[in-house]
Amino acid sequence: MSVLIVGSTALDSIKTPKTENPRLLGGSASHAAVAASFFSPVKLIGVVGEDFPRRYLRLYKRHGINLEGLQVRPGNTFHWSGEYEANMNNRRTLLTELGVFETFTPTLPTAHRETPFVLLANIAPSLQHHVLDQMRRPRFVVADTMDLWLNIALEELLRLLKRIDGFVLNDSEAQQLTKEANVFTALCKLHKLGPKYVIIKKGSHGSILSGPKGIFICPAYPLPRVMDPTGAGDSFVGGMMGYLAGARGSIDTHIRRAMIYGSVVASFCCEGFGLKRTTKLKRAQIEQRMKELEKLTRF
Amino acid sequence: MSVLIVGSTALDSIKTPKTENPRLLGGSASHAAVAASFFSPVKLIGVVGEDFPRRYLRLYKRHGINLEGLQVRPGNTFHWSGEYEANMNNRRTLLTELGVFETFTPTLPTAHRETPFVLLANIAPSLQHHVLDQMRRPRFVVADTMDLWLNIALEELLRLLKRIDGFVLNDSEAQQLTKEANVFTALCKLHKLGPKYVIIKKGSHGSILSGPKGIFICPAYPLPRVMDPTGAGDSFVGGMMGYLAGARGSIDTHIRRAMIYGSVVASFCCEGFGLKRTTKLKRAQIEQRMKELEKLTRF
Repeated sequence: MSVLIVGSTALDSIKTPKTENPRLLGGSASHAAVAASFFSPVKLIGVVGEDFPRRYLRLYKRHGINLEGLQVRPGNTFHWSGEYEANMNNRRTLLTELGVFETFTPTLPTAHRETPFVLLANIAPSLQHHVLDQMRRPRFVVADTMDLWLNIALEELLRLLKRIDGFVLNDSEAQQLTKEANVFTALCKLHKLGPKYVIIKKGSHGSILSGPKGIFICPAYPLPRVMDPTGAGDSFVGGMMGYLAGARGSIDTHIRRAMIYGSVVASFCCEGFGLKRTTKLKRAQIEQRMKELEKLTRF
Repeated sequence: MSVLIVGSTALDSIKTPKTENPRLLGGSASHAAVAASFFSPVKLIGVVGEDFPRRYLRLYKRHGINLEGLQVRPGNTFHWSGEYEANMNNRRTLLTELGVFETFTPTLPTAHRETPFVLLANIAPSLQHHVLDQMRRPRFVVADTMDLWLNIALEELLRLLKRIDGFVLNDSEAQQLTKEANVFTALCKLHKLGPKYVIIKKGSHGSILSGPKGIFICPAYPLPRVMDPTGAGDSFVGGMMGYLAGARGSIDTHIRRAMIYGSVVASFCCEGFGLKRTTKLKRAQIEQRMKELEKLTRF
């Protein structure tokens, strides 16, 4: 089955103490779509400007990503620029130019409206709602978010949580939303807001799922060197949704393995700037790390 | 087989925003010894003053802990007092009265010198050396430490690392010692200092082992409520060494399960002040959480 992914499609300029990487392909939907593409057909919903490099359109296509829902509008593509500190943990935003993203309305091609799996990657909750409004009985809907929306669109986000099956957020966002430092107490509180499945991402410490079958402690793949963590969270949730869409059987049967696959794709994402490493990935390399993670956690 | 444990034996006064708990049984060796006692016979090496409550001696004995190596000296028992913030993560020391600990020289009863498993729990590296000097060809020696010794006894600690099989420290200490924020790079650097097995503790994020059989990602047991994390790290390493001493076969065969058992005992430790919860523990309850951890991590 296929997965529909809506989110930001951007150009990222990423500075580290050692290098500058201008205008990389980025955005939550780009990372999630490429990650999902290793496991199932992907339909991308987004917007880019006239400046969007053709090579990035070719890159999407090489991954078999359906671009019928990608709008090309007069103006510039959303451009984000950020700088990482030497430890690659702290980053600060240098510049945000919304460009064509400012007036983006995600309108779905008719054929897209029956896609069974929907990933509402990080984007304004109002746009996530707008996509959901157009869908016809999707089988499994997951939303990601970021601290910005907790600050400026909390009401819409809370309303969204009642409409989705799964909610993915990182530990600091979970703490901000629930006022609860303990991850497991935060998970309980998050369920009460609506979603049956809640996943808290903890970066290099892995992630925690709480769902109908209880808690799952999902490890991160060990990386001795992180080049650029931008998009790792999007790759994680994209890989997970791609795997779920490609698997037969119930969500509960597959969601743990799906998270591990997400974790593996996210690890590759961290090993290159932007999508550079992820786009060179072969399925066999994913399976290799999958097996390694099994060995690294077996006792 | 039995395990010899040296470390601090103290009275801990622990304040939280809600309660005060004066003069609890504490110290690295007390926590480690009680944790180890669930799995194998323990010989405790330490010192207490004349003020040491008899009920704590009875408590050690109830756990079958051999007290031949516990010195009772004129003066007061080492007394530590600390205060936790509401989130139970940040603590500050209010008071440290060394008492009889100031002049402690760990002299081993002759019969103790052939104990096969040795845990040098957190204590001054010079005393850890002194214990090792008295041992006759121990099979497996593990040392724990704390930031204080990195600051004031680094040279002796580095010399100790060349004499032990396993080294256990927490993530911030590993970063301080190696100047490396990445856990996996830090592990490589720590091996170069001597130990064949290195374990980095990450609190509620679990722990990571690096050894001859590679990396092991060890989860922490999920706790929705932490009452008092004092001694959790000591319980972890104590439980691990107790399990290893009680297991037949090679270290490599058992160390992963040993860490999981340590993790489980540490989780109980966090659920009560001082050793209050740990001392009420039954082996069946440990096995129950062990099984749960298997379920929580299986994929």
